[in-house]
Amino acid sequence: MDRNLRAMASAAQERGLALRPHAKTHKCLEIARRQIELGAAGLTVATVSEAEVFADGGFDDLFIAYPIWPSPGRAERLRRLAGQVALRVGIDSVESAEALATAVGPLDVLVEVDSGHHRSGVRPADAAALIEAASKAGHSVRGIFTFPGHSYAPGAPEQAALDEARAMVDAGPHAEVRSGGSTPTARLAGTGPVNEIRPGVYVLNDAQQIELGTCDWADVALTVHATVVSRSGNRAIVDAGSKVLGADRLAWATGFGRLPEFPGARIVAQSEHHATIEFGDEAPPARGDILRVAPNHVCNTVNLADDLIVFSGGEPVDRWRVAARGANT
Amino acid sequence: MDRNLRAMASAAQERGLALRPHAKTHKCLEIARRQIELGAAGLTVATVSEAEVFADGGFDDLFIAYPIWPSPGRAERLRRLAGQVALRVGIDSVESAEALATAVGPLDVLVEVDSGHHRSGVRPADAAALIEAASKAGHSVRGIFTFPGHSYAPGAPEQAALDEARAMVDAGPHAEVRSGGSTPTARLAGTGPVNEIRPGVYVLNDAQQIELGTCDWADVALTVHATVVSRSGNRAIVDAGSKVLGADRLAWATGFGRLPEFPGARIVAQSEHHATIEFGDEAPPARGDILRVAPNHVCNTVNLADDLIVFSGGEPVDRWRVAARGANT
Repeated sequence: MDRNLRAMASAAQERGLALRPHAKTHKCLEIARRQIELGAAGLTVATVSEAEVFADGGFDDLFIAYPIWPSPGRAERLRRLAGQVALRVGIDSVESAEALATAVGPLDVLVEVDSGHHRSGVRPADAAALIEAASKAGHSVRGIFTFPGHSYAPGAPEQAALDEARAMVDAGPHAEVRSGGSTPTARLAGTGPVNEIRPGVYVLNDAQQIELGTCDWADVALTVHATVVSRSGNRAIVDAGSKVLGADRLAWATGFGRLPEFPGARIVAQSEHHATIEFGDEAPPARGDILRVAPNHVCNTVNLADDLIVFSGGEPVDRWRVAARGANT
Repeated sequence: MDRNLRAMASAAQERGLALRPHAKTHKCLEIARRQIELGAAGLTVATVSEAEVFADGGFDDLFIAYPIWPSPGRAERLRRLAGQVALRVGIDSVESAEALATAVGPLDVLVEVDSGHHRSGVRPADAAALIEAASKAGHSVRGIFTFPGHSYAPGAPEQAALDEARAMVDAGPHAEVRSGGSTPTARLAGTGPVNEIRPGVYVLNDAQQIELGTCDWADVALTVHATVVSRSGNRAIVDAGSKVLGADRLAWATGFGRLPEFPGARIVAQSEHHATIEFGDEAPPARGDILRVAPNHVCNTVNLADDLIVFSGGEPVDRWRVAARGANT
């Protein structure tokens, strides 16, 4: 993990990019502190409640990279946060710009642009109009941001990084902040169109990054330690299922996670408390053996745990609280 | 929810079946109390830590329907539990029977039989030998159990219920307890081969049960209230993704959950904090609107929440803690 943190910090520094890592991956104050110590410009979060946890933890520069709607309870909380830290929030419509201005007051905002993931965000050609409307509503528009989430498919990161650069150029070439970057594209972002990156997963990595080719096994810093409880033929069952690993499985994934020590094995089925692992021609490990499992999507795995057990040199040395576990509102 | 609880209690009573509902679905003391008040014989749980939560909550008859392995920390906890409540545990191998006898001592056990789901459990023909070995190891073998999980596919529940009955007959016609039953098969279990059922999901139901035809919309007792934060064309994005709904999606599911008020809508994509809903020919709801979402698999959704908000007559009337949230070890 420490190596992953340093590598991304250096990669950003060398290219003159601001690094604003996404804390939704680790939800953990100890990891966020390391990111800031290594030069991160601030943190990215996904929700108001994540922002509250990190603000209370002493972090003073937070970007909620999400098209927040100021529901009644949320508006009051946003107002309090804006008084507590340097806060930026995302918008992707005139309606949300106006609703935020009315319910919360003037904010520092970034306009979300759709660079090809087709989730939220305006088309690049429509960004200028929204920037103008948001300014008119009283906000201070700090720039634009995008999440090139269509990078999450084999062979897709390169094209997604190009799409991201193109969207930034088309949407706001003169915007102060042009923020992009997912873990698969972060190292591909060149200088110029993008001047800030927000990768999250790179800290810990997972089976999806392995299967995308974004990282090597040595870079996978979080695994679930699971016990073999049953076996038959070339299969073993371990006691970690969707309530521990998460149930994420993108269409191209080869299973429900991977095993660093058994790269040929595949998790062919999963229930809440079982993962069924096929070992190919090898005999499966014995009942009672403890296996390390890299989950498909580490952000969801971390959100299922109360604590992370920290290893150094193969030994457990500390326990860190997942401070923002469940902070998803 | 109250209607679901009563309906299953009556269905079991009418057929003379013991009902031992699986508490992994709700992980909630208030719901478990209602189940016992309506005549449940005891509770089923999946893990030692769930058993601890319910034992501490005052429940005195617990079955861990899982092929537990007595890892060092777990053995001590099992011994404590066995002294605290009437405890039954699952076994599916001579190795686990002997390991439990050595590490924990003699226990009340049920032998797990594979009735077609092909996860854990011995073949029915091998049950008698394991029953004998477990007795020889010192355990008191109370019976056999199976989980006909292959009921989870459209059109599959009827055949799965037949497979379950056949497995019980083949494995242990004279066993004192012959325990089966998933929510899709629970109401199909006839008298005779099975004499105890362990459904879990029926309490709350979910989109999977809707799409299997096991329940109607009026039976779906848990929904996530999510806010529309973005929209474009016939799509809306709400602020509940895999960190709130869970990421479960079986191959035959039509999406990542369903909307009771919009039965034609489909959740076509999901991220951690976004669900993308397609509304067909209708215009999507406005930003700020609150939509009710039935998750695909309610057991995982509940495990992501700290509290359940209880509604009666359309009004919030109480808040129940998910006491065994995260109790997955």
